[in-house]
Amino acid sequence: MVNSTYFENNPKLYLFLPMLYVLWADSVLSKRELQLLEELIKSQKWINAEEQDFLEQYLNPENPPSPQTLKKWRKTILEAAETQEESLSTLGKALVKHHDKEHEAAISPETLESFQEAEEKIGLLHKETNYIFQKKHDTVTSQLQTESDFPVKKLTQLLEGTQGETIQKVKAVISDPSFKYPDKGDLQTEREQVYALCKTLAENGFGSWAFPKEYGGKGDMEGYFTIMETLSYHDLSLVIKFGVQFGLWGMSVFFLGSEKHHQKYLTDIGSLKLPGCFAMTETNHGSNVKGLETTATYSKADKTITINTPHEKACKEYIGNAAMHGQKATVFAKLIIDEVDYGVSAFVVPLRTSEGNLIDGVRIEDCGRKMGLNGVDNGKIWFDNVAIPVDDMLDKFSGIDDHGEFFSSISSDNRRFFTMLGTLVGGRIGIPRSALAAAKKGLTIAIRYSDQRKQFGPKNGEEVPILNYRMHQRRLLPPLATSYALHFSLQYLTKRFLNKTEDDAREIEALAAGLKAYTTWFTTATLQECREATGGKGYLWENAIPALKADTDIYTTFEGDNTVLMQLVAKNRLTEFKQEFGDMDFITVFNYLTNSAKVNLIEKNPIAVRRTDDEHLLDLEFHESAFRYREEHILSAAAQRLKRLIDDGMDSFDAFNVSGHHLVNVGIAYIERIVLEQFHEAIKNVEDESLKPTLDKLASLFALSVIEKNKGWYLEDGYMEGVKTKAIRKMVNQLSWELRKDAVALTEVFDIPENCLAAAIA
Amino acid sequence: MVNSTYFENNPKLYLFLPMLYVLWADSVLSKRELQLLEELIKSQKWINAEEQDFLEQYLNPENPPSPQTLKKWRKTILEAAETQEESLSTLGKALVKHHDKEHEAAISPETLESFQEAEEKIGLLHKETNYIFQKKHDTVTSQLQTESDFPVKKLTQLLEGTQGETIQKVKAVISDPSFKYPDKGDLQTEREQVYALCKTLAENGFGSWAFPKEYGGKGDMEGYFTIMETLSYHDLSLVIKFGVQFGLWGMSVFFLGSEKHHQKYLTDIGSLKLPGCFAMTETNHGSNVKGLETTATYSKADKTITINTPHEKACKEYIGNAAMHGQKATVFAKLIIDEVDYGVSAFVVPLRTSEGNLIDGVRIEDCGRKMGLNGVDNGKIWFDNVAIPVDDMLDKFSGIDDHGEFFSSISSDNRRFFTMLGTLVGGRIGIPRSALAAAKKGLTIAIRYSDQRKQFGPKNGEEVPILNYRMHQRRLLPPLATSYALHFSLQYLTKRFLNKTEDDAREIEALAAGLKAYTTWFTTATLQECREATGGKGYLWENAIPALKADTDIYTTFEGDNTVLMQLVAKNRLTEFKQEFGDMDFITVFNYLTNSAKVNLIEKNPIAVRRTDDEHLLDLEFHESAFRYREEHILSAAAQRLKRLIDDGMDSFDAFNVSGHHLVNVGIAYIERIVLEQFHEAIKNVEDESLKPTLDKLASLFALSVIEKNKGWYLEDGYMEGVKTKAIRKMVNQLSWELRKDAVALTEVFDIPENCLAAAIA
Repeated sequence: MVNSTYFENNPKLYLFLPMLYVLWADSVLSKRELQLLEELIKSQKWINAEEQDFLEQYLNPENPPSPQTLKKWRKTILEAAETQEESLSTLGKALVKHHDKEHEAAISPETLESFQEAEEKIGLLHKETNYIFQKKHDTVTSQLQTESDFPVKKLTQLLEGTQGETIQKVKAVISDPSFKYPDKGDLQTEREQVYALCKTLAENGFGSWAFPKEYGGKGDMEGYFTIMETLSYHDLSLVIKFGVQFGLWGMSVFFLGSEKHHQKYLTDIGSLKLPGCFAMTETNHGSNVKGLETTATYSKADKTITINTPHEKACKEYIGNAAMHGQKATVFAKLIIDEVDYGVSAFVVPLRTSEGNLIDGVRIEDCGRKMGLNGVDNGKIWFDNVAIPVDDMLDKFSGIDDHGEFFSSISSDNRRFFTMLGTLVGGRIGIPRSALAAAKKGLTIAIRYSDQRKQFGPKNGEEVPILNYRMHQRRLLPPLATSYALHFSLQYLTKRFLNKTEDDAREIEALAAGLKAYTTWFTTATLQECREATGGKGYLWENAIPALKADTDIYTTFEGDNTVLMQLVAKNRLTEFKQEFGDMDFITVFNYLTNSAKVNLIEKNPIAVRRTDDEHLLDLEFHESAFRYREEHILSAAAQRLKRLIDDGMDSFDAFNVSGHHLVNVGIAYIERIVLEQFHEAIKNVEDESLKPTLDKLASLFALSVIEKNKGWYLEDGYMEGVKTKAIRKMVNQLSWELRKDAVALTEVFDIPENCLAAAIA
Repeated sequence: MVNSTYFENNPKLYLFLPMLYVLWADSVLSKRELQLLEELIKSQKWINAEEQDFLEQYLNPENPPSPQTLKKWRKTILEAAETQEESLSTLGKALVKHHDKEHEAAISPETLESFQEAEEKIGLLHKETNYIFQKKHDTVTSQLQTESDFPVKKLTQLLEGTQGETIQKVKAVISDPSFKYPDKGDLQTEREQVYALCKTLAENGFGSWAFPKEYGGKGDMEGYFTIMETLSYHDLSLVIKFGVQFGLWGMSVFFLGSEKHHQKYLTDIGSLKLPGCFAMTETNHGSNVKGLETTATYSKADKTITINTPHEKACKEYIGNAAMHGQKATVFAKLIIDEVDYGVSAFVVPLRTSEGNLIDGVRIEDCGRKMGLNGVDNGKIWFDNVAIPVDDMLDKFSGIDDHGEFFSSISSDNRRFFTMLGTLVGGRIGIPRSALAAAKKGLTIAIRYSDQRKQFGPKNGEEVPILNYRMHQRRLLPPLATSYALHFSLQYLTKRFLNKTEDDAREIEALAAGLKAYTTWFTTATLQECREATGGKGYLWENAIPALKADTDIYTTFEGDNTVLMQLVAKNRLTEFKQEFGDMDFITVFNYLTNSAKVNLIEKNPIAVRRTDDEHLLDLEFHESAFRYREEHILSAAAQRLKRLIDDGMDSFDAFNVSGHHLVNVGIAYIERIVLEQFHEAIKNVEDESLKPTLDKLASLFALSVIEKNKGWYLEDGYMEGVKTKAIRKMVNQLSWELRKDAVALTEVFDIPENCLAAAIA
């Protein structure tokens, strides 16, 4: 019965062919489809029993048409129908006509109607099924493409602010062909390469940049951060090696030492003649650094201080520069005079001779391979009663006088320690700026790739760039907007730091801690998205994302564990910047909790809780109110909760512990409000109107994606209703869609040197 | 005026000392505190002007007491007061008494009252300030410790199910001292080491385990998955190298080939005499594998098939075993006969001779270093018209007959392709099981470390294990519960796969795709938490977490990009398992959308939306209803949305694109419901009552943490109100707190060989 010429001999049956083809071509027939088709065939009075049998043979799943038959059908259909038909039945009619004009005329309107009814019942939308027979298929999704018209260079200048010249100078050095990427694999090779590159940076004057002119520097602290940030486009081991030497080791001598130490050390530190370390963390004391156990015992007899590691796990650990290159270290140790413990101070202690031989009494172990940053030689250090001259105590905050008496302008050991730490807050500025640069680099690679990489497409249409897919946009566009937002807040933090006074020092320390935590978490999450968004390509070392991910992963830990930091930020918010930052002692918080007057909280706006119009959703004022509302209410709730727990007799330590999650959110809400405000502030100050529409969109996308992330909180609180959070989700999608065309240009704004985008895919 | 003996000479003034000490010891005095203290001093009629001046000198922030003075005060206080006092004033009174009994008697109740009033105003809670003078300070937080009493071994047996013997056999091999970890660093060394270990595994019979007995195997597919999973405790490069050889290469020959291929290849594959590859992915076609471009052209003349790479970017990429060891490959290519394209089929193609020399026409490039899995030699392969005998076409689903005609029982090329892929679903079982093993290993290391690692503590109390902190519990305990939940669902998936029929094949493919995506995302997120939760230690290579993270990162991409897979799962849910899985063609979905009757959705329970009692929150029935409700409503909303968009004239491709985010959530909600149900099912079947309380808690923690994650959705929908989601958050905290004592034992249940927990910190 299966007869390849049967259709040709009975051309009226072609009317059935398109439907038969479509149903077999892309699926196996379901019972319902079979039944509907069978009914259709049976209802046609104009075909006889034999023809009916012929057609019904194609309704048997046990005996489907052969692949060749299917292909022949397709060919037959394509030959007959040049133009787009309205439905499968009109296509069938055209087929009949093509083979036999007479029969076509015989197809009655009723017949066609019954076919169309069947089509509809089966669910074969004419537009969709038509695409099966077409070579081209354009969709809205297909049309999206890179076509931005905002002035890229002007936006770059805005981001660079006053630092353009310094940035260019750094980029010139790292773009030089001699500035190769260190080889990965062999640890020692990579470390030596990074060390050599660091020397080149020092030769270019970058190492001493922040130091006073008399020690070979430029006295330009802002420039130092710019250098750290710009170097981050190249290799993060290099940045950290650079930061350990000139930031941690150099700045500790600069900020904790006095004139005599500056004279003795700074020039050689800045030139990298004297490589050194920052030896604070101990194996047993990382976050709780106040508890460190290394001792520095003063001897009146010979005016020396003896540095000692009291037990194996009190060794200094993860110390950068220690495993191979460090010759001296700023060592943090408890100062003991006449058996009285004066708390933690800092001392310059030798580790190696200038030839690189270990000093007697110093034992160093290599930390070995790490997840990343393998160009940095981290080590453990033990001191076995290493004596140093009393002059090598860094005595900015406390010292030992000629009579061997301890002196300090700060009574409390605890407070002195945190005041000392406070001066080192620069690390919590350099790290987030480096982290953000890494995120920008990851986004540049992922967005460029996603703009080029095509995968899937409409039926018989071309494949479309993966950045045209909503899910891909949701992965990459909100982080792109956030990276802009963070850029301005880190510039703000830097400026605050450069102008800090006694009065706002605590606030700035909290701000730095919070932004460090927020930015590094952002970077970790963003690079994860970039890795997944670039698929297998993002897993290959040549495409840079693996190194970015591995290297920055520790950023969430060093310069302070993010979770611990965010709880400190919250405590600081609770005490309104009153107290020393970094102290985990709670007494000062009680003072606040006990005495705090009722805060005037922002009230809900009963109309706004349901507003979903675009004007409102895109109103920057609305965004700020929503962020402020959350910040205030979450802080006030935390204060009330702590007070209630303590009033109910809970130990304060327990009360703070069980509120830990709440406190982290207090810190995050504070930082998010600052980031939004500073983004808005930057936009307000933009003079070039041509930049504003894009910046406004980025600011809205940042704000709304944060609100979307926090929608559970807003809904719980009643600040928004479901209709509104749904509208916000939709607007996040819409803004991502609109910004897709600008995405590549928005990464060009970062102006990352091409050689640093080593990624083959970028 | 500052006179160190003034207090001694005026012992009544000791009454002020504790307050002065406390205020200076841990903070700098605020204006308010200064004012309150000054008022207190001035209001005391029993001190004269000189005494008043003496005291007031200590209220000057410009001239604080010296560090020595502060220390002396402390010593004085500690000497006098052995026992705990009720407040700073009673402590002061005790001090006065210690130095001069007479004066103590003179302190009037009114005086004491005024002091206590001041204390309260300042906010110095007696309990808290007292801790300053104590050496011990116990808190609820301090008391938490590992103290589990459920039968660990019995729970291990429950997890192992029928597979205990196989697991022990694998563990015996990987625990052998000869089974060292491969060196990291030099690529070639690591690859050769992993290859050698793979040979050892083959010698132990693991390679051929799943193959029929006639080819040296045991015909035990379930055992094969168990082996993959258990090996994952050792080294993931080894697992993937093993999986490439015996799973991808071996199973493709087994499932896509016929008897003749089994005879020709399986024995040598299982013994690793014949190393091979699975060459499907091309540079330009990864997710959209249907579009791959390699051709396999049949020549009637000499009955050969010629494999060809049409252009540079149509090369096979990321192919495991290709860069170094592979001698043959299952190559996926479009079969062309007489210029007709019959769609993608699979062919066995030689790459290298048994001596390892490349075959003529084959070009291979090394993919080089990757983020992880560097023990696997991935490569790119180009074929320049490599001819193979027609017999090496794997002809389970289609073939070429003796007349050179194509034959297949499946009409549509598209459907044939996805049917073929469907048989390879095993990879989407092996990968999530390996991923879960990696997560369990990470959790074991992180939880053991967090149970031992102490940091911070109550004032003057001992430091407490970091696992006692709420934030740390929230990081690690819900993932621990989820890892149990996933364990049972992956066992369920395995069983379904082993018993699959034509009827449920599509459902199982969707289940595998969804569980693969869900589990690998879970693993990536969990290992990130483990890394951060173990701080710097977690960044060191020796502590295993870096390798776990780097190696599993690609799991979210290979065997299918997770985001693409979750959208496929959603599409499959929309069509109720009717259609071939993996097809991105949408016609079949319209059929469903157009025809689907109204679904009977679960209705909200108006009382339950506000219920917050423990009985309800811990009710497994409530959890299942909440999960099912979400699954049904999110699916139904997606269907309605798609239908609306298409009815409004949107192209289906666009409609699916703009619904992408929604669809991913449809997939996730489905998988979460399955995971919860299977966990409950497993608990129901537990005979040993002693295991139930712990399993119930784990199931509740899993369920409630998922609901907490989705609370925005539940609140938007109105299924829960804010009071309830808040109560759920509290319960997640509470369950994590309660399970903290069991956490170490719950990781012991995984019974990971100690040598595999290479982590120094574990």
